[in-house]
Amino acid sequence: MTDSLAFLGPAGTYAEAAALACAQWWQREVDTQFQLRPYGSIFQALQAAATQECNFAIVPVENSIEGSVNMTLDTLWQFDTLQVQQAWVLPISHALLSQADDIQKIEAVYSHPQALAQCQGWLQKHLPQAKLVPTRSTTEALHHLEETPTRGAIASRRAAKIYHLPVLAHPINDHPDNCTRFWLMSSQQSSSGSHSSLAFSLPSNAPGALLKPLQFFAERNINMSRIESRPTKRALGEYVFFIDIERNLSSPDIDSGLEELKKYTETLKIFGSYSIHAAT
Amino acid sequence: MTDSLAFLGPAGTYAEAAALACAQWWQREVDTQFQLRPYGSIFQALQAAATQECNFAIVPVENSIEGSVNMTLDTLWQFDTLQVQQAWVLPISHALLSQADDIQKIEAVYSHPQALAQCQGWLQKHLPQAKLVPTRSTTEALHHLEETPTRGAIASRRAAKIYHLPVLAHPINDHPDNCTRFWLMSSQQSSSGSHSSLAFSLPSNAPGALLKPLQFFAERNINMSRIESRPTKRALGEYVFFIDIERNLSSPDIDSGLEELKKYTETLKIFGSYSIHAAT
Repeated sequence: MTDSLAFLGPAGTYAEAAALACAQWWQREVDTQFQLRPYGSIFQALQAAATQECNFAIVPVENSIEGSVNMTLDTLWQFDTLQVQQAWVLPISHALLSQADDIQKIEAVYSHPQALAQCQGWLQKHLPQAKLVPTRSTTEALHHLEETPTRGAIASRRAAKIYHLPVLAHPINDHPDNCTRFWLMSSQQSSSGSHSSLAFSLPSNAPGALLKPLQFFAERNINMSRIESRPTKRALGEYVFFIDIERNLSSPDIDSGLEELKKYTETLKIFGSYSIHAAT
Repeated sequence: MTDSLAFLGPAGTYAEAAALACAQWWQREVDTQFQLRPYGSIFQALQAAATQECNFAIVPVENSIEGSVNMTLDTLWQFDTLQVQQAWVLPISHALLSQADDIQKIEAVYSHPQALAQCQGWLQKHLPQAKLVPTRSTTEALHHLEETPTRGAIASRRAAKIYHLPVLAHPINDHPDNCTRFWLMSSQQSSSGSHSSLAFSLPSNAPGALLKPLQFFAERNINMSRIESRPTKRALGEYVFFIDIERNLSSPDIDSGLEELKKYTETLKIFGSYSIHAAT
């Protein structure tokens, strides 16, 4: 059986590395082949899964250094049908790629803003004079290197291999425990796994309104492993909350209480239950 | 009396507009002149205030559409001495600037990633073919326009005036209620005003650990107007929480309980109490 998997392209991005790790698992465990399809943005990749142009989409949700990926959370709040099928945690290890024969000759470093931010200490120490130039993806940064030995780019060693570019330094992340969590999304109902995610908005101007949904989980002794707020985009000070919990949603204590939880929220969206996998 | 005020430069940024509104207030209300000093990054502006190279720094904290400004929160968590003296809310109204005689001739649009994101619907509708190019500030985007009529930039109308550039369209924000909240920071203790901010990390692996600090405020009937989580950068799943409350910290119910609040947290940082002002 062959399914299609949307990801944030082009080839050589960390999102593609996550997509490949995920595809290997599906081939090995459930004998399903994934055909990988690159998209130009996270929004377009998720839209492809929501409209069933693709069976699945894999998107970054959170990085251990830079935090939430806003585009993913904001888009998931808009779509009603997408559910989390699996979470994938990918270690992020940045390299400095360049045609320069000496690192001191590099005058400008190109990369995705998150990658530049994750290496800012290293860049400050080794290339204090270099201009830092943001690009839309780590792969796009590589296009700036062609025949210009005074430029460098931050990307993965895998990207260096694919695009035949020399690695001048590796690893250059400021924090060695740098990893990104991805979600594999599709329109199928997801219900197996020990982790669950949901999001809600709250009735406006109700003091302590956030406390009630949090108490709902605490009373059931359920650990909330993450809470993230995003603006509703209606007014400054109004938020949507994204919550991850360490429990399957169909466990009896939650399942019977979901109606109660709904009462405490304005809009409640449930992204399902899933398991967490490590990509290497 | 003259004090110095650090802000994210160069001239023409929204941060400078916030700095000017704030400086006018200080001149009018307390007869203090502010000398504005531009810095290259939010980190550098805050560092100038922390080391008392400048008396004050004004930095963006949150936008109503794009959410928290991570660099500000992460830097404030690192510095121990800075306190919020005032909050300033600035309406954000984007314009399309270009030397093109017809909007259809624009092939690329330059701006800060947040400004590009805030106008993505308008750009999709009116310039679907244009390449979107991120820059470090809205003002830096203007440097790309020189003598190239096929390029556009997104910035304020104030920037258009300062740099003598034509405005082709205004306003182009997707959401009309777009505003950014800034904080005026200094090393002085801040204790007057009806709003307060604090941040804390939690003991690891304690289920429901976040609930206790939130209950502390709810039991006192204190409205929490915002909660934001940022990664601790130690490991995926460990967070620092930033909280805004609608109460002065020296009110008796909080002041006497701060020792109790400390017990529920690993590290607790208090950014003081302040008032909120509108910049026009």
